[in-house]
Amino acid sequence: MSDIAATNPANETGIGTLTITQVGLVVRNIEQTARAFAAVFGIPVPSSNLTGSLDEAHTEYKGQPSEARARLAFIKAGQVSIELIEPIGGPSTWRDFLDEHGEGVHHIAFEIKGMNERITYLADKGVPLVQRGDYTGGCYAYLDGTSSLGVVLELLENYR
Amino acid sequence: MSDIAATNPANETGIGTLTITQVGLVVRNIEQTARAFAAVFGIPVPSSNLTGSLDEAHTEYKGQPSEARARLAFIKAGQVSIELIEPIGGPSTWRDFLDEHGEGVHHIAFEIKGMNERITYLADKGVPLVQRGDYTGGCYAYLDGTSSLGVVLELLENYR
Repeated sequence: MSDIAATNPANETGIGTLTITQVGLVVRNIEQTARAFAAVFGIPVPSSNLTGSLDEAHTEYKGQPSEARARLAFIKAGQVSIELIEPIGGPSTWRDFLDEHGEGVHHIAFEIKGMNERITYLADKGVPLVQRGDYTGGCYAYLDGTSSLGVVLELLENYR
Repeated sequence: MSDIAATNPANETGIGTLTITQVGLVVRNIEQTARAFAAVFGIPVPSSNLTGSLDEAHTEYKGQPSEARARLAFIKAGQVSIELIEPIGGPSTWRDFLDEHGEGVHHIAFEIKGMNERITYLADKGVPLVQRGDYTGGCYAYLDGTSSLGVVLELLENYR
């Protein structure tokens, strides 16, 4: 940890962590990109899975329920996973990114505790909630930092 | 490390590592973005520095010498640093990204050994060199993975 990180009292200020756990890449064709990463890194092709339906994931995009789903694949890269994301179905921050920017890094993710408090904290700092939902064992939120930070932040809270 | 990472014989296949060390964000105004990150993360504002001149850095962009420079600031985030990059001067992969995509994550970086061999390996995999240069104690290369991986890769080789 650096001097800067060491001066951050985790769980007291900011979002309570400075440790990035995922770099999320939105792509058009996840099978194709997964094969390309496997070839470049000399690893097996990672498998992909579809995120839950609206009933399971309770996906909210800009405050409204959304049928948005995505195919996800993960490549473990030390502390950080590269998350490949192919948007499927309804409106989402993933789809918006693809439409506006093309393929690329959509977000950096942090594992936190206290989701609702962190969302309120970031909204107060000008980084508003854009999408949230549940997955088995946890929940996520995307905060739109594009105007102030140049990137979307994702918060992940695992209940275990 | 995951099963996938564990099956990668480091230094034998791929680029010899699966550990991301930097996430590089191209921004228009580094002072402004550095202040925004500091506010969100509850840390001191990171200072920025100008990269070396052409004489010092031997910057090559698309095979030609370039007067390109950048202001850089680093935020240590666990294993990974968030690198803020404001393009200055001549043509560069940073400037191209800003012109084509606006602010956002330009690259993910890996620390490697054997720069020229890794560059040749990636070129053979369809990820060509786009920019390279030197810094005090090491050298870097950007490989254009946008068409196959959805993101630029940076290789860093530190001599010490």
